[in-house]
Amino acid sequence: MERENIGNLIVISGPSGVGKGTVCRSLLKKIEVVYSISATTRRKRPGEIQGKDYFYYTREEFEKKINEDAFLEWARVYGNYYGTPIEFVDQILHEGKDCILEIDTQGALQVKEKRPEAIFIFILPPSKEELIRRLTGRGTENEKEINTRIGKLEEELAHLCDYDYKIINDNIEIAAEKIKAIIVAERCRVKKNK
Amino acid sequence: MERENIGNLIVISGPSGVGKGTVCRSLLKKIEVVYSISATTRRKRPGEIQGKDYFYYTREEFEKKINEDAFLEWARVYGNYYGTPIEFVDQILHEGKDCILEIDTQGALQVKEKRPEAIFIFILPPSKEELIRRLTGRGTENEKEINTRIGKLEEELAHLCDYDYKIINDNIEIAAEKIKAIIVAERCRVKKNK
Repeated sequence: MERENIGNLIVISGPSGVGKGTVCRSLLKKIEVVYSISATTRRKRPGEIQGKDYFYYTREEFEKKINEDAFLEWARVYGNYYGTPIEFVDQILHEGKDCILEIDTQGALQVKEKRPEAIFIFILPPSKEELIRRLTGRGTENEKEINTRIGKLEEELAHLCDYDYKIINDNIEIAAEKIKAIIVAERCRVKKNK
Repeated sequence: MERENIGNLIVISGPSGVGKGTVCRSLLKKIEVVYSISATTRRKRPGEIQGKDYFYYTREEFEKKINEDAFLEWARVYGNYYGTPIEFVDQILHEGKDCILEIDTQGALQVKEKRPEAIFIFILPPSKEELIRRLTGRGTENEKEINTRIGKLEEELAHLCDYDYKIINDNIEIAAEKIKAIIVAERCRVKKNK
């Protein structure tokens, strides 16, 4: 009935610009967890390392893996594929380690389909206005892109009920501490047959 | 759908001698929560304060409250009644504060019946041998009582599946930190219609 030695799969998601990456970098300093590594077909950039930054696949390899249902989630962005290889995640979990997936809300819903028992954490902006400020501030998106992302926000919030926990990111350290608490708490959970 | 302003009811239970009280005293220093106060028919001892240590009821008052279903749980121990008044607990919860019930496993099962949505934490001894050592060490029980308590252990463990979390008390501070993490995590939970 108990599966003591299997780690938890922890999905951290939320709207674009909410600060998922920053919160997760802070989290990594606070608790021992393993980060999932994505696969991609985009070209390796100078300084990037195979199996550390990404697993680099050719388009043919990636599409073969899609057909084999070998991804927990995948997407095509600007002509390149990105995805989370199931095999890598399961290897971490079977070593008894918790595995963190930091992914967009689209990807989180795909993982929810495949692994409903995973732990889903949604990071919220303090307000819609603050999210716009952050998206504008990072200067990587143009106005049209920012409007698209804001438009997606309502739709993303409608899926909040698919998540187990929600965290408002008004302070990076506090948000990371809360995620740490969730991970510690989930390790204490009495596992049940569903 | 969300009930943001209602606190969580947190039930901390476990076998006699496991150190519930010590762990809870450490917890109180770490996080802001409110302790439930029990009602009893036993006589007030010197130094005890009405509404702080206990609510002191006459036997008639207590039995009337039992008939009115005014307790979350109650028991009769050596001819005296002890119980948790629902009204007091609900007042705390409606103030948006988390309420801690530190009770025996019998009481926890009664609360589970009345409030299945409460958060149930089971404190475990590191081993059966260690529990015997602790029960013997505190010197308040005789050998027969200790044997009765040990006999109850197996039965209590069979109910572990009724709990949400389990914590092994091999270190008071670590155990209290884990309960704190559970409380923080539960405050982040996305509330769902059941």
